Amino acid sequence: MHVLITGAAGMIGRKLTARLVADGRLGDRPLDRLTLADVVAPTPPEDGPSTEVVAADLTRPGAAEELLESRPDVVVHLAAVVSGEAEADFDKGYAVNLDGTRALLDAVRTAHLADGWTPRFVLTSSIAVYGAPLPNPIPEDFQQTPLTSYGTQKAIGELLLADFSRRGFLDGVGVRLPTICIRPGRPNKAASGFFSSILREPLVGQEAVLPVPESVRHWHASPRSAVEFLVRAAVLDTALVGPRRTLSMPGLSATVGEQLDALRRIAGERAVRLVRHKPDEKIMAIVETWAAALDATRAERLGFVAETSFDEIIRVHVEDELGGVLPS
Amino acid sequence: MHVLITGAAGMIGRKLTARLVADGRLGDRPLDRLTLADVVAPTPPEDGPSTEVVAADLTRPGAAEELLESRPDVVVHLAAVVSGEAEADFDKGYAVNLDGTRALLDAVRTAHLADGWTPRFVLTSSIAVYGAPLPNPIPEDFQQTPLTSYGTQKAIGELLLADFSRRGFLDGVGVRLPTICIRPGRPNKAASGFFSSILREPLVGQEAVLPVPESVRHWHASPRSAVEFLVRAAVLDTALVGPRRTLSMPGLSATVGEQLDALRRIAGERAVRLVRHKPDEKIMAIVETWAAALDATRAERLGFVAETSFDEIIRVHVEDELGGVLPS
Repeated sequence: MHVLITGAAGMIGRKLTARLVADGRLGDRPLDRLTLADVVAPTPPEDGPSTEVVAADLTRPGAAEELLESRPDVVVHLAAVVSGEAEADFDKGYAVNLDGTRALLDAVRTAHLADGWTPRFVLTSSIAVYGAPLPNPIPEDFQQTPLTSYGTQKAIGELLLADFSRRGFLDGVGVRLPTICIRPGRPNKAASGFFSSILREPLVGQEAVLPVPESVRHWHASPRSAVEFLVRAAVLDTALVGPRRTLSMPGLSATVGEQLDALRRIAGERAVRLVRHKPDEKIMAIVETWAAALDATRAERLGFVAETSFDEIIRVHVEDELGGVLPS
Repeated sequence: MHVLITGAAGMIGRKLTARLVADGRLGDRPLDRLTLADVVAPTPPEDGPSTEVVAADLTRPGAAEELLESRPDVVVHLAAVVSGEAEADFDKGYAVNLDGTRALLDAVRTAHLADGWTPRFVLTSSIAVYGAPLPNPIPEDFQQTPLTSYGTQKAIGELLLADFSRRGFLDGVGVRLPTICIRPGRPNKAASGFFSSILREPLVGQEAVLPVPESVRHWHASPRSAVEFLVRAAVLDTALVGPRRTLSMPGLSATVGEQLDALRRIAGERAVRLVRHKPDEKIMAIVETWAAALDATRAERLGFVAETSFDEIIRVHVEDELGGVLPS
């Protein structure tokens, strides 16, 4: 099994790579080859199968075609400009999230027409495809009227994935990810960044800024769950998915207050006191257009599973990022 | 008031032009200029305001920018490859319906950023944005999971229109048109063509082919109503529309059998006998993914109105296309 990951240097890309290497297989087939692509060449894993790392900018004409020359069995397309950046930089967001995705899909089609290659294509979408006012939970048959350019670009990706799958150029599965929490590492430009930092920083004794009220409710899953979603999407029997190729992933619906309650239970009041309330209307304006919860029944029936408490989400972070122990 | 119409040589484009010239105004402002664009330069109206006709292929780099140099107050974007052709010719459909529309939107944005120009932008969408299985009627908050490339391209157009409007580059209104019935003139490549030909041809004593069962239910409005929708969309107070910029237009839900009953009432059994049943699985496969009826409550509240019987739709055709009399 040969897997290509775009955006492989990103947080999810690195975790997916590690997971695949650790498993040594994908579904019931051994993993014998990895291609890891990103704008800057990703670091190859120390062990594992034959791995090629590629510096590829999908917005450059010809880049997608080159990347697909080795005809991977599975393409996991993670490369994207995050929501905050896509909102701040209109041109970059459309270039990467729309044109880059389309270039990759078009290059798959060109290859398919040339030699019949029909890879599994896993596309990451987002709850940002939905825009307020929203029902809670959002049924999967709800309209996609995003209120950010990022959400618009992701919704277009879902439409293209379905049409290219229907045409038989590729075998697509879209995963509509919850907000990933707790994101490890440094904050990125995602407007949703605070959902992670209000837990991640206090867990290691550092301050964090909360730009929205504690009553804000949102839809979360851990990085570990996100990786599990992608692995499952890569091997799923798409006959069970049908023409509506993107699935709302399961998640945990929680308020910021409930996040902080879980932090208190796990790391004590001292940790919670490190969260500084500093309202930011710009972030609030984006976040309030987002989903509080999605109906993920279809994905759940297909075996996708997420965390059921924020205590669990914090514990996953402690296990995967902090070596299983909290700093004293 | 300066109005630019793309696809102005098409059926709706010509009717919209004639209507604007006849009114001599749009809303409460006099019509003092028209720009009519199509792949082949449209025929200018005999009377009316200052009119420029332009041969413009929006898929050619720079074409959209040139077309917008005169900064029209209203852009009505009708140019499109129809459903059957977009399904048969993947590249052409995406080039015209997606890239052409995006080029026009991007050119508006470039001009807006240069000098603040913010035109009303009327985009035609279609019931083809919805794909089976579908509720009847389709609520306006229903997901868009089209099952044709045409529907995919129109759904993407709706998403872009909303994002460009939200960004303030233009003031967009999308009209999700029913199937236009009775289309005058010769059949085109639309898979929906038979809905018109089974009435149009028999009304003038000619045979027509019906490729689907009489039980097929569909969603219709006359060309006259379609033009009225566009005129209303061009002057609508968009503060009343909000961020969900595309409106499902009202229409008439009727079966093919009900169409033929109306034909019988107006033109007699002899006319109905001219309809030859010749099942075509390829057309049926496309048509059965389409809508039987849409909930158009939001548009109706904003004053959009369509026909309420097929007798009325046939009478509109007789008045507008046959000089008000049936050939004996």
